[in-house]
Amino acid sequence: MYTIGIDLGGTNLRIGLFNEQGEVVEEYSRPTESEKGPEYVINNMAEIINALKDEHTIHAVGIGSPGPLNPYEGVIIEPPNLKGWINVPLVNMLEKKTGLPVKLDNDANAAALAEAILGAGSGASSVFYVTVSTGIGGGYVLNGKLVSGAQGSCGEIGNMIVNPNPDAYQGPGLNKGALEGLASGTAIGRIGNERLGITNGAQGVFELASQGDKAAQEILDEAINYLAIGLANIVHTVNPEVFVIGGGVMKSKELILEPLYEKTKQYLYPSLRDSLIIKPAKLDQKAGLIGAGLLAK
Amino acid sequence: MYTIGIDLGGTNLRIGLFNEQGEVVEEYSRPTESEKGPEYVINNMAEIINALKDEHTIHAVGIGSPGPLNPYEGVIIEPPNLKGWINVPLVNMLEKKTGLPVKLDNDANAAALAEAILGAGSGASSVFYVTVSTGIGGGYVLNGKLVSGAQGSCGEIGNMIVNPNPDAYQGPGLNKGALEGLASGTAIGRIGNERLGITNGAQGVFELASQGDKAAQEILDEAINYLAIGLANIVHTVNPEVFVIGGGVMKSKELILEPLYEKTKQYLYPSLRDSLIIKPAKLDQKAGLIGAGLLAK
Repeated sequence: MYTIGIDLGGTNLRIGLFNEQGEVVEEYSRPTESEKGPEYVINNMAEIINALKDEHTIHAVGIGSPGPLNPYEGVIIEPPNLKGWINVPLVNMLEKKTGLPVKLDNDANAAALAEAILGAGSGASSVFYVTVSTGIGGGYVLNGKLVSGAQGSCGEIGNMIVNPNPDAYQGPGLNKGALEGLASGTAIGRIGNERLGITNGAQGVFELASQGDKAAQEILDEAINYLAIGLANIVHTVNPEVFVIGGGVMKSKELILEPLYEKTKQYLYPSLRDSLIIKPAKLDQKAGLIGAGLLAK
Repeated sequence: MYTIGIDLGGTNLRIGLFNEQGEVVEEYSRPTESEKGPEYVINNMAEIINALKDEHTIHAVGIGSPGPLNPYEGVIIEPPNLKGWINVPLVNMLEKKTGLPVKLDNDANAAALAEAILGAGSGASSVFYVTVSTGIGGGYVLNGKLVSGAQGSCGEIGNMIVNPNPDAYQGPGLNKGALEGLASGTAIGRIGNERLGITNGAQGVFELASQGDKAAQEILDEAINYLAIGLANIVHTVNPEVFVIGGGVMKSKELILEPLYEKTKQYLYPSLRDSLIIKPAKLDQKAGLIGAGLLAK
């Protein structure tokens, strides 16, 4: 018995064949070409799935996709990373073309599931996955199961308000003072540009900070402080056993993990401080595909 | 088959006998007299339980108690409302004295369970209960089951940071800028005293506001704004289907519910605004006892 996992990215479409142990036994990758429209991309998916179906007994298909989307209705709503894909009934379309049951969730949730089951959070009863990249997202896995939320918006912590001041920064589509506007890779790059004239984004700030530049370090300290508030707020809301932190910004994890841990600890009830566990993600770019495979289970 | 629920309060000890439908069929109430120590109070509990055991087949005992406590080890840690109760192995002691399995959780979690199963949240797949009283607490019920969290601290949203400014108010034992310090009944009363010289707490602020006093209304607006940030942050973290709001402050719910709903909505991703549901608690003081009965199930 096999399952198929699909990592539908803005750039690449990855399709994996998974055995019962959740291991990838075959893998396909091609450009998504999302600009050619849903019908074209979904036909490409169906073609590969149907070819795999001829050779193996396939149980179900899981898809991780950029959000917003509705995991219950299987509809992609209007992702910034899939331009022109508006209210696409992806699950319905793919089920018709393949005859297989299809499960859709957003890419951060898929990655959360992968890290919780097979990655850095493996063995923990509850895992909150946080990805800090161009945006900030997350996913919550409780007793081995993804918590999707009533409208599928569990883990949308990029929009958590961590600074209610009227002059707090407001990123596009976000609350004023939202975590993503203050602590994402994009935010670090923006502030680096404003204060230090850096033009190569967060990477430039990390480089300067690792060379001992104080102004760059201050930018990181501020972002880490907001991330710590975000994590502490999650602890006091659902008290997960383990945090797993992934995303592009974690390429500089030696500058982030330790101060993030110390800061978050300070913001917890004293009785919770010694139990705080923050781990770096383990599966990297593979998390989305592996998680999609797990969604199919 | 019956279960027993115990609402261990700082003032009163309530014990209920529950039938299989979760209805209270017998109820006992007496002063807790917690100052006489755990042994004395636990003996009182055991006496009533053993008398009930002689007449009925009892399956298990559930207890809702002020926190902090460890629900997994069944130990009461050091609740401000049970002075001198330090690291009391309540579950162990009561199991020995009664021969019945005992389940302990904090009072807000017990109330959350009651409201989710039999109260205002009945029928919803996920309920986040928030109590706004002298303090602010909560509980999260997912698919009919209480989520306790890794250290039993799920729902401790009173310590959620909603204002990170260095000059934000810091309540005792709380983070600077924590929700409880800015929006609890105690907080509303404290600010009423500072700004308006009110000496009868939140009640005084509510009275003035309902008479049209602008300064009192402003105090409520600020508290409601912080509560709205708290609820929106919970939505973007776990996206519950329904919020149920209880606690003493809800005696003035006509001044709170509507503006809280409108404010919270503004802080949500547009796609989530129409799905927001905030309901007033239904079981009032009974929630703790009923929840304790459900804990035993």
